[in-house]
Amino acid sequence: MTAPVFGGLEAGGTKVVCAVGTGPDDIRAETVIPTAAPGDTLGAAVAFFEDYFRDRGPIAAIGIAAFGPLDLDPASPTWGFVTTTPKPGWGRADLAGPVRRALGVPVAVDTDVNGAAVAEHRWGAGRGADPFVYLTVGTGIGGGALVHGRPLHGLVHPEMGHLRVPHDLPVDPFPGACPYHGDCLEGLASGEAIARRWGAPAEALPAGHPAWELEARYLALGLVAVIAVLSPRRIAVGGGVMRTTHLLPRVRREVVSLLAGYVDAPAFRDGIDEYVVAPALGERAGVLGALALAAGAVPGDGSAQTAR
Amino acid sequence: MTAPVFGGLEAGGTKVVCAVGTGPDDIRAETVIPTAAPGDTLGAAVAFFEDYFRDRGPIAAIGIAAFGPLDLDPASPTWGFVTTTPKPGWGRADLAGPVRRALGVPVAVDTDVNGAAVAEHRWGAGRGADPFVYLTVGTGIGGGALVHGRPLHGLVHPEMGHLRVPHDLPVDPFPGACPYHGDCLEGLASGEAIARRWGAPAEALPAGHPAWELEARYLALGLVAVIAVLSPRRIAVGGGVMRTTHLLPRVRREVVSLLAGYVDAPAFRDGIDEYVVAPALGERAGVLGALALAAGAVPGDGSAQTAR
Repeated sequence: MTAPVFGGLEAGGTKVVCAVGTGPDDIRAETVIPTAAPGDTLGAAVAFFEDYFRDRGPIAAIGIAAFGPLDLDPASPTWGFVTTTPKPGWGRADLAGPVRRALGVPVAVDTDVNGAAVAEHRWGAGRGADPFVYLTVGTGIGGGALVHGRPLHGLVHPEMGHLRVPHDLPVDPFPGACPYHGDCLEGLASGEAIARRWGAPAEALPAGHPAWELEARYLALGLVAVIAVLSPRRIAVGGGVMRTTHLLPRVRREVVSLLAGYVDAPAFRDGIDEYVVAPALGERAGVLGALALAAGAVPGDGSAQTAR
Repeated sequence: MTAPVFGGLEAGGTKVVCAVGTGPDDIRAETVIPTAAPGDTLGAAVAFFEDYFRDRGPIAAIGIAAFGPLDLDPASPTWGFVTTTPKPGWGRADLAGPVRRALGVPVAVDTDVNGAAVAEHRWGAGRGADPFVYLTVGTGIGGGALVHGRPLHGLVHPEMGHLRVPHDLPVDPFPGACPYHGDCLEGLASGEAIARRWGAPAEALPAGHPAWELEARYLALGLVAVIAVLSPRRIAVGGGVMRTTHLLPRVRREVVSLLAGYVDAPAFRDGIDEYVVAPALGERAGVLGALALAAGAVPGDGSAQTAR
C-alpha cells in the first residue's frame, strides 16, 4: 500500500500557498495564489487541486490552515468559516465548503498556528512531545497547541497572546500596543509593540539594545503562564521577532530564572535548550501545517477537526 | 448487564477517604482512615476494599486521587509514587503498587485536583464541557484540567497556581506569600496570602473589606491566563476561600472587564455566570474524583492513566 497523498491550503493575508504531497520531503506540486476576493482565490486553489487530481492521481483529504478568527465549532452551521476580519470580503467567508463540494474529499480546517503546531509535532521541532505548544512572535503573538494527539480547541481558539503579564512600569513606561488590553503580552512583546516603543523595528535594534532584555523577560513571563496552565513537554517559539538569534537563549535564561526551581524537572535546568526550541520547519510550517491537518482528516488518525 | 462497581481512594494530608460505588448517587460503602504512615494507611484502605470484595462482590478498578506531587509519567518506574513531600514518611511512597498487588484490578492514579476535574466533568459542574478546568483556592491554589476526555498531564502536572500576574504594587505592597516566587498568583491570592496580608483569615474579613476587590482581581487575572492558554468551555472555582459567597460574582465581573470584549463569545458577556461556576460536588469532589478515575481505568473509557 502506498502512502496517501494530501492537499494543503495555507490561507494567509497576502498569499495562499497550495501543495500536494505526503510530507516535507515529498511535495509533488505547489502553487502560490495572491489573496484576492474569497471566491476568486478559493476558486484558483480548487482548480490547482482539480488539475492534480485529473492529471496525477487521487488526493485523500485537504487541510486548510488559515488566518482567523475562524469558526471551529464542529456543531456550528458555519464551521470552517472565517468569522470577523478586517480583511475586505473575507468576513463570514466559507473556506471549507467550496473546497469540499468541488473535490468531494474530507476537509480539515484549523488556524495557521494550530496547523504549524501539528506540522512541527509531526515532522519538526515537536516530534514526540505531547502536549506541545507552538508560539509565534511576529506583528502579533499567537499560539497553537496539540494535546492528546489533537489540536486544542475550546470555547474559542486559545490564542495565548492576550494574557496579562506583569508590566515593568518603572523600566518600561510604554503603555502597550494592544487596542483591547493595552499591556497584555501581545501589547508589550509583539513586533508591533517593539516598533512603537522604540521607534524602530525589531530587526533594526542591535543586540546590546535595552529592548532585548525587556523582550526576553516579557516572553518568558508568557511562557511561564503556558507552562503553569498546560505543562507542555516542549515549546517552539518562532515568528519574525525570533529571527533575532540572540533572543531565544535570553528567553530560556529568563524562563529558568522565573521558575525559580519550583518545578524540579531537568527540562527546567540543564535541559532548557531542548525544552524551549526554535521551530524546525521555518517558512514551510504554514503549508506543511495544512498538509498535516489533511493527514489528520483521514479516518483513524483523528488528529484534526474535519467537515461532517 | 449491570454497571461496574468502582473503588475510590482519596488520599489527603489528614485523612484517607475510601468509597465503593458507581457514582455520587450510589455509594455502597465508605470509610475514613486517618493519614498515618503510608504502610499502615494504605494497608487499612486495602483491607476495606478486600472486605467489600469478599462480602459484597467484585470491584472493577480502583482510582486514587492524592495530594502530590506525584510521578504520573506512565513510562517511569516510579509511576504512581509520591515524589517529594514535607509529609513525614510519604516521600517516594508507592501509592498504586500496594493496592494493585493486593486487589489485582486496574489502578488509576492522579492528583486530587485532576480527580476533582474528572468528577465534576462526569457528574457535576463540568458536564458537557471539554476542555474543562477545576481550580481550587484554599491555603494554596491548584488546578486540574480535562482535555479531549482525559485529565491533562504534561512534562509535570500543570498546577496553575504559580503563574505570574500583574501585582498592583501601589495598592498592594504585600510582597507575596510564595516561598519560590513571592508574588505569583498563589503568592498573592491564596488563603495563606490573604491571612498574611491582612493579619486575619479570609473567613474573618467582611464583604466590604478591601481584601475582596484585590482578591477578585488577582483570581480573574489567573482565569484570564487559563482562558488565553487553554480556552476551557467552563471553569469551576472552588476551595475554602471561595466559600465567601460574594467572591465568585466579583471574579466573574473582573474576568469580563479584563477580557475587554476581545473574545467575542456569549460566555464572556451575558453567559459568564454559566462559564465561571462553583463546583457542584462540594466536599465530595475528592472521593468522587477517585471513583471517576477508577471508571476511566477500565479499558475502553481511557479517561485516566492506569498502571501498566
